[in-house]
Amino acid sequence: MAETKLQLVERHIRAFPDFPKKGILFRDICPILKDAAALTAVIDLFEEHVRANHQQVDLIVGLDARGFLFGPLLAQRLGVGFVLVRKKGKLPGATVSVSYELEYGKAEAEIQEDAVTPGQKVLLIDDLLATGGTLYAACELMKKQQAEILGCLVVIELKELNGTDKLKPLEVFSLVRY
Amino acid sequence: MAETKLQLVERHIRAFPDFPKKGILFRDICPILKDAAALTAVIDLFEEHVRANHQQVDLIVGLDARGFLFGPLLAQRLGVGFVLVRKKGKLPGATVSVSYELEYGKAEAEIQEDAVTPGQKVLLIDDLLATGGTLYAACELMKKQQAEILGCLVVIELKELNGTDKLKPLEVFSLVRY
Repeated sequence: MAETKLQLVERHIRAFPDFPKKGILFRDICPILKDAAALTAVIDLFEEHVRANHQQVDLIVGLDARGFLFGPLLAQRLGVGFVLVRKKGKLPGATVSVSYELEYGKAEAEIQEDAVTPGQKVLLIDDLLATGGTLYAACELMKKQQAEILGCLVVIELKELNGTDKLKPLEVFSLVRY
Repeated sequence: MAETKLQLVERHIRAFPDFPKKGILFRDICPILKDAAALTAVIDLFEEHVRANHQQVDLIVGLDARGFLFGPLLAQRLGVGFVLVRKKGKLPGATVSVSYELEYGKAEAEIQEDAVTPGQKVLLIDDLLATGGTLYAACELMKKQQAEILGCLVVIELKELNGTDKLKPLEVFSLVRY
C-alpha cells in the first residue's frame, strides 16, 4: 500500500532522549526539512486543512525560529503574507510585546506594531506544541492588535503537556501527536 | 513601465536608523514576507540565478533565524532538502560546531553531524550579508563535513562592511546592495 503523506511526515521525525536536558524526549523535525517530499507533504496537509476549514485567511503568523521554516511556505501556497513573531529586541520600529512564563523565568514575544491590522484573519504556525506558552503569547499579541485568530497549526503536538487546554477555545490543528 | 521583480523586492525593504543601536541603519525585510508577490519575487530571482549557474544542487543550507524564512522556499522550488545552521545548543544529537567573532565576544554555529555528507553540493542562504561572520562560520561547518560549497545567496548585501571579501573565493549572490 502506498505511503500516505502523513506516514511520510511521521517517518521523518526523530526522537532524542534527554535533550535539551535529562527527562525530555526531543522531537526533531530536521529530517522533514532535509527531505523535499516530506516537507511538501507537511505543507500539503496544512493547506488541505486550511482550505477545508477557512474561507478567508489574510496572514500566516509564525513563531521564531522553527515557525519560520514552515510559515512562509504555507503563506505562499495560500497566496497571503507572513508575519514574524520574534523574541524581544529583534524587530526594528514600533513594536508590541507580551511576556510569558518559561520553566525558569520569563521571555517576551514581539511583533511590529503594523504587522497586522484590526479585523485581519490570521492563522498561527509553529513546529511543535508543548505547554503552549509561546503560542499563547503570540495569540495575545494578535488580540492586542485586534486581529481575528482563526486557529493554530503545528506539525507536532505533545499531548501530555496539555497545550491545547491552554489555548482553548482556539482550535489547534496538529499533524502528528505523541 | 511594469515594475521588475527586483524593484518589487526593493520597494519592500525598509530602513530603520539606530537599530539595534546608535549608528546602525537596520534593513528590515519584514515587508517582503508580508507581501506574497514580493516574497515570490525573491524566490524567483534566487531560483533563476541558481538554475543559470549551477547544474546540480543537493542541499540549501540556511542560517538561524532569518535564513529559515527563505531557505525552505528555495529548496522546495529546486526540489532539494534544507539544512539548518543553528546557534549552539539548539540541535539534538551529534553535532559539529565552530565559533566565530561577534562585535563583542564570540558565538557558535552548529549543524547536526549527519546534516550533509561528503561531496554534497550546497548553497548557503541568509537574509543579509554584513561582515560575513556568520556565513563564514557556516562555510567552515560545511568544509568540516566535506560538503562542496557552490556559493552563498543573500537578499541584501551591505557593501561597506566587505562581507564578500571575508567569504572569498566563494561567490556571493545578492539581490539588493546598499
